Amino acid sequence: MTRVILNCDLGESFGAYQIGNDEKIIPLVDAVNIACGFHAGDPETIHQTVKLAKQYNVKIGAHPGFQDLLGFGRRNIEMHPEAVYNLIIYQLGALHGFTKVQNVKMHHVKPHGALYNMASKDRKLSDAIVEAIADFDKNLTLVGLANSKLIDAGIDKGLNVLNEVFADRTYQKDGTLTPRTEPGAVIQETEDAIKQVESMVEHGMVTSPTGEEIVIKADTICVHGDTEQSLSLVTALNTLLKQSR
Amino acid sequence: MTRVILNCDLGESFGAYQIGNDEKIIPLVDAVNIACGFHAGDPETIHQTVKLAKQYNVKIGAHPGFQDLLGFGRRNIEMHPEAVYNLIIYQLGALHGFTKVQNVKMHHVKPHGALYNMASKDRKLSDAIVEAIADFDKNLTLVGLANSKLIDAGIDKGLNVLNEVFADRTYQKDGTLTPRTEPGAVIQETEDAIKQVESMVEHGMVTSPTGEEIVIKADTICVHGDTEQSLSLVTALNTLLKQSR
Amino acid sequence: MTRVILNCDLGESFGAYQIGNDEKIIPLVDAVNIACGFHAGDPETIHQTVKLAKQYNVKIGAHPGFQDLLGFGRRNIEMHPEAVYNLIIYQLGALHGFTKVQNVKMHHVKPHGALYNMASKDRKLSDAIVEAIADFDKNLTLVGLANSKLIDAGIDKGLNVLNEVFADRTYQKDGTLTPRTEPGAVIQETEDAIKQVESMVEHGMVTSPTGEEIVIKADTICVHGDTEQSLSLVTALNTLLKQSR
Amino acid sequence: MTRVILNCDLGESFGAYQIGNDEKIIPLVDAVNIACGFHAGDPETIHQTVKLAKQYNVKIGAHPGFQDLLGFGRRNIEMHPEAVYNLIIYQLGALHGFTKVQNVKMHHVKPHGALYNMASKDRKLSDAIVEAIADFDKNLTLVGLANSKLIDAGIDKGLNVLNEVFADRTYQKDGTLTPRTEPGAVIQETEDAIKQVESMVEHGMVTSPTGEEIVIKADTICVHGDTEQSLSLVTALNTLLKQSR
Repeated sequence: MTRVILNCDLGESFGAYQIGNDEKIIPLVDAVNIACGFHAGDPETIHQTVKLAKQYNVKIGAHPGFQDLLGFGRRNIEMHPEAVYNLIIYQLGALHGFTKVQNVKMHHVKPHGALYNMASKDRKLSDAIVEAIADFDKNLTLVGLANSKLIDAGIDKGLNVLNEVFADRTYQKDGTLTPRTEPGAVIQETEDAIKQVESMVEHGMVTSPTGEEIVIKADTICVHGDTEQSLSLVTALNTLLKQSR
Repeated sequence: MTRVILNCDLGESFGAYQIGNDEKIIPLVDAVNIACGFHAGDPETIHQTVKLAKQYNVKIGAHPGFQDLLGFGRRNIEMHPEAVYNLIIYQLGALHGFTKVQNVKMHHVKPHGALYNMASKDRKLSDAIVEAIADFDKNLTLVGLANSKLIDAGIDKGLNVLNEVFADRTYQKDGTLTPRTEPGAVIQETEDAIKQVESMVEHGMVTSPTGEEIVIKADTICVHGDTEQSLSLVTALNTLLKQSR
Repeated sequence: MTRVILNCDLGESFGAYQIGNDEKIIPLVDAVNIACGFHAGDPETIHQTVKLAKQYNVKIGAHPGFQDLLGFGRRNIEMHPEAVYNLIIYQLGALHGFTKVQNVKMHHVKPHGALYNMASKDRKLSDAIVEAIADFDKNLTLVGLANSKLIDAGIDKGLNVLNEVFADRTYQKDGTLTPRTEPGAVIQETEDAIKQVESMVEHGMVTSPTGEEIVIKADTICVHGDTEQSLSLVTALNTLLKQSR
Repeated sequence: MTRVILNCDLGESFGAYQIGNDEKIIPLVDAVNIACGFHAGDPETIHQTVKLAKQYNVKIGAHPGFQDLLGFGRRNIEMHPEAVYNLIIYQLGALHGFTKVQNVKMHHVKPHGALYNMASKDRKLSDAIVEAIADFDKNLTLVGLANSKLIDAGIDKGLNVLNEVFADRTYQKDGTLTPRTEPGAVIQETEDAIKQVESMVEHGMVTSPTGEEIVIKADTICVHGDTEQSLSLVTALNTLLKQSR
């Protein structure tokens, strides 16, 4: 099995508002995507999360999002590409402040939430994002939805890219994720999620709920650690991927 | 006359809210202090201001403040020193994102408003600030109120420091600025402000409204460009300092 | 000529950020739409603006917008109708706090910016807005784009409505405003704007740049006071409408 | 035993950030203090909390705080009394929007966190707060720290007041709370907290850790529901107070 990276969104607490199981999940993953203070995260949280990532020697990535704390960056906001460019630079810089003082490397960038989803389908938006990443540091790796316009933009810009897949989300026959608003969007059983990952990683294929086989490139798997169930899935995936390397 | 640096706070616009005469004043000064998005400024504004500073070849400094847009960073906020450390790192990093993509150097850091004033009298707060600056980049210069605890902390940390004086503010006999809430705090006549600067720069002395002579070290003069009057003072100071070099 | 109301968006300052010519324009209009602190405005500004409106005896309206200070409420944000309902209630309540302590009546509600534009074309969004207004106070008048879905929703809910037209914006043949991004969107000459208003108010017609005559209902005219030119247009409209009553 | 009111701070969630056990604690208390969107809370949360309070028929109060989400309203912010007045009006109005549409009464106001603590010792600040409350609705009850300047200000203004005491915090010999930063500030054992409440409610006395007996007026007890332990204390207090009525 090809080496596949487990990644997780972390550092999403804000002031008194604690969210996520950062300390439990970080030992189980290879890479973390740290919120940069716009849709989640604050200077304290970012610093703590960078220290934690350093301690467990996982790859550190920026997880920039829209400036929308109330909506947790999940609401579509219409922005000019130039404004998106600056949005990304600001957040990369802010996180970089902390990796700099902790003397660790920033490895990748993965846009968050609505920005990630919108960029997957919008090449202009994607171009603004990858231009910002490349201008900031062309050695940064771009993480985006597998086979999306964001990945295309990253490749065209000459960035290293990682196609991201989801263990516990179903895929539609056109290769996009089943929206969460529809039934069957989330895979409930850990066993089924594991099977989907095996299929994606070993055979580069995923099967839609309606039975179609879809070609998919899986460089990295996004996991969550919010619930006990999700933590057990991550543990299982961690074991699976270690065995196969 | 010793070489003295004219500095100005810039980049304070926020979205639709335009403030300041950045384009008019930037050709007249040696250094700019750019708001970093907490008390003022936003990603667009920061980028524009960095470009403008690059164009006019002036020294670029960070102007970090409290996270208080409504209060423009002028309200005292009680924070733990560690939180202040992170506040500074975040803002230095954010500005650095833009100097990085514009391939220009960040030269100095000057805390803003209430943070600047509180640090002038509070060594713990000052230590947190200078530790952040030194950890981020020990070649950065600290700009602080002349003879203040902030300057002391910077010197003890081994940073280059610039003692800042004010052209159009009066000084009390203890060497601190007359608070704006008191009569006579602001020097109204350009001519008087020029005289005060000449005294500070040439003789290292300033005279209080009550007649006391105070020893003061003037490495840099803070100017503003919000009004026509302030612009004419800056023009006069610019001429004065050019002649004397 | 039917009695037509001149309305203006006011109270858009935020902290140190001053915007608009509120004191100059308020004596010239019949109604003001006061920003409620989400896309613009703050508690101080709201109170000052309510006092000013009381002093000049103009109708006071709420001008609620998206929670997007950076974008000044002009960026489309995707929200659930229920969340929009709560967004409106919160802002109506906040403004009402100040009309209550000043013992003046709140007369109308006009959504702001992107919320206004999106609601003009989206009946679900409009229904959420009018439901909030009616639940809060069914005697409030709704101000919306003439002939829009927002106006339809208001009528169906049983609210008093005011069809709003624009003096200095051109209309397309489908009756919508020419987007600002297109040439000819804004009428430059005061004289031409006056003529457009006369046509809309007296004949219920407006002519598109391509010559089509469009039926339009004009209950209220939106004016701005940001520039000297706009102030002179308001003065001219004020004179015109006074004569015709 | 005199009738004593159990009150709890609720509605402190913000967007995706969930905090508190609102649904568990609300059936156990007599009154709730609802965050108004400045230090915590958002329009959605406020509406849900008002509905919940209505369902359980508990008294609804406003819990206005500083505009400091990052600091959860716990950081001292220096504000002019007039600005504090407007801060209160805005937040009372916002909450009132929701009580209005739910057709329930607003019963009281209890300032939050740093605003509460600062007002306890600062009569000017207290006067600004009580003036805002009285101007908004003179039938509102003020909840403040027992024997504080805030209570004094409320009485002088003619407001109904409720002296607030704490079940699980120790009191110093001057009658103020032992700061959380000092050892022994929090009473760990439920049994001890119950005893303290009995003493305060029945005898109007509380004993400091150093043995002094302090006269204290206990009209209402502040409880929290964040932890299992705190929930069991609330349950015990609920039982105690029911028996004694």
